[in-house]
Amino acid sequence: MSFRLADGVETPVPLIDEAIVERNIARAQALFDARGVALRPHIKTHKLTRFARMQIAAGAKGVTCQKTSEAEVFVAAGCDDILITFDILGPAKTARLRRLADKARLAVVADNEVVVAGLSAAFADAARPLRVLVECDVGGARCGVQSPQEAARLAGVIARSAGLAFGGLMTYPPAKSHDKVEAFMRAAKPLCVASAGSCETISSGGTPSMLTFPEGSVVTEYRPGTYIYNDRSLIARGACALEDCAMMVAASVVSRPTPDRAILDAGSKALTSDLLGMTGYGLLRDYPEAVITGLSEEHGHVDLSACARKPEIGEVVFVVPNHTCVVTNMFDEIVLHRGGAEMRKVRVDARGKVF
Amino acid sequence: MSFRLADGVETPVPLIDEAIVERNIARAQALFDARGVALRPHIKTHKLTRFARMQIAAGAKGVTCQKTSEAEVFVAAGCDDILITFDILGPAKTARLRRLADKARLAVVADNEVVVAGLSAAFADAARPLRVLVECDVGGARCGVQSPQEAARLAGVIARSAGLAFGGLMTYPPAKSHDKVEAFMRAAKPLCVASAGSCETISSGGTPSMLTFPEGSVVTEYRPGTYIYNDRSLIARGACALEDCAMMVAASVVSRPTPDRAILDAGSKALTSDLLGMTGYGLLRDYPEAVITGLSEEHGHVDLSACARKPEIGEVVFVVPNHTCVVTNMFDEIVLHRGGAEMRKVRVDARGKVF
Repeated sequence: MSFRLADGVETPVPLIDEAIVERNIARAQALFDARGVALRPHIKTHKLTRFARMQIAAGAKGVTCQKTSEAEVFVAAGCDDILITFDILGPAKTARLRRLADKARLAVVADNEVVVAGLSAAFADAARPLRVLVECDVGGARCGVQSPQEAARLAGVIARSAGLAFGGLMTYPPAKSHDKVEAFMRAAKPLCVASAGSCETISSGGTPSMLTFPEGSVVTEYRPGTYIYNDRSLIARGACALEDCAMMVAASVVSRPTPDRAILDAGSKALTSDLLGMTGYGLLRDYPEAVITGLSEEHGHVDLSACARKPEIGEVVFVVPNHTCVVTNMFDEIVLHRGGAEMRKVRVDARGKVF
Repeated sequence: MSFRLADGVETPVPLIDEAIVERNIARAQALFDARGVALRPHIKTHKLTRFARMQIAAGAKGVTCQKTSEAEVFVAAGCDDILITFDILGPAKTARLRRLADKARLAVVADNEVVVAGLSAAFADAARPLRVLVECDVGGARCGVQSPQEAARLAGVIARSAGLAFGGLMTYPPAKSHDKVEAFMRAAKPLCVASAGSCETISSGGTPSMLTFPEGSVVTEYRPGTYIYNDRSLIARGACALEDCAMMVAASVVSRPTPDRAILDAGSKALTSDLLGMTGYGLLRDYPEAVITGLSEEHGHVDLSACARKPEIGEVVFVVPNHTCVVTNMFDEIVLHRGGAEMRKVRVDARGKVF
């Protein structure tokens, strides 16, 4: 299958198949409904308020954002239940959070007392307390307290802080580590109930592990992001098939300097340099033997030596990116379509919201 | 030296020291003035019209853009001599180029007849012909004709095409390959004069090779980009010193989960995943023993195990990025300053212009 780009649609540009998006949303919702676990999709992948509303309409409890400036965009679009999974620090950022908390049901995370003290200072006189979850490191080696005991200690600090309420535990685990999540959280939960009086939410996440989410988990809420679009990294991890990938970057072959080389008009400023452990910077859907060996800022370098059939100058090719979430963030506009039909451009509402 | 961020300046954000920018501009201009070679800086690094105007005021002949949509921004800001070093293809893009060519002195490149035919179709009835340079591959293995003979053949095609004028030769060589540039261009020039009647401009580029640009070169014009800011990759290549780096990304330490780990609020959506062959995703200026071992989308992971002194939660740190050009493209706004003083936010005029 090959798409003809609609008039006014120019390469390079990400195309998003809404039919695949709807299927991916429905499938994830059904999976977590069957487990009795709330779904709180991360908007980092799409950064589109329309897709957040679709996720909520399908049954999601709310959404996850990584930065306050992202949450502002989604609150303005009517999302009223948002978890910001970030240590929000500094008086300007906590004041911004406070202003937003007057408009929606917000929760945040913290993994240290400096952040908790800053949040408390900003919310001490708030009409309703800010829910703060303790971020736990179950092996991902990013943020998070290092032990169930530390989690319980920080939970107690939050519970005793003016303007704050302890909301539970949150982790972003490494892929396929449900056992580590279960072990950490089962140990931490009773300790937190003892130190903070409750432990309402236990939130985990990650698309790579989504399909293997266990029955009878201690986790009450799951935060997958990439599942809505999927990408080459998820195909490589066995978490989806090619036909589940809703995003393809349309690019033009602008040069064929040698028989085995094609140059695309999409480089690192379109596809990004994310490799996620793979070889090559994306999959050419209609030329699967081709390898995107390198990216300049505005050029993609393609090795065609393994291809029997080769794309010609002027041909539009479709790249399944390694990592959709970062590609979304490169474009002011993307194109929605349904199987190549009904193409229309839409703004990426929360692109570049880094604060 | 440590900067205090001005009120209203929040992390993560690139800071650009204008005093260093001015010095970098002056140094490059003096170098090429001494060689009798025109300077045509590439705007991909800064994407700021104010800096393009500074480069031109310092003596640059014009600027280089990679995409027509970038050139539109710089023409609107008064830059009237622009080379677009890209194979511009397709009727919508060539029509856009045609509209822009009515407003400024434009030139483009081509390395194949499909592109030349498209340009000719768009400019056949233009009042003045579009200058087209032949892009040559002297070893960079990106775009470009593969031999001086091919260059001369395509030059002849351009010279005979309605609406076009052959403008000369252009290459983006691999680093430290002046010898390859000289050999290719010295062979191609007389062949082009024979096939196309002239060979006015011979344009080369690249900051890594700038300082070793030879005397008596056949090259008439040079297109460095990164030199205006410099970055960690150029320090690694010996092309600049730390004090020549005008861009630093200010980031906050938001977590210290273990004694040897710090987490920054700048991830791949701020610093990008560009490694350019190096280890680590940037240099922490005040903690040079620290290693930015990984980037999540909004988190930077820092290994402090080699650091005697370690940054604390809430501290603002300054990251010299691996590759400035791609960082510029991540931010709607950056901050200008002079040695930490006179901080003010400015829009990145041509961010995200991919068409």
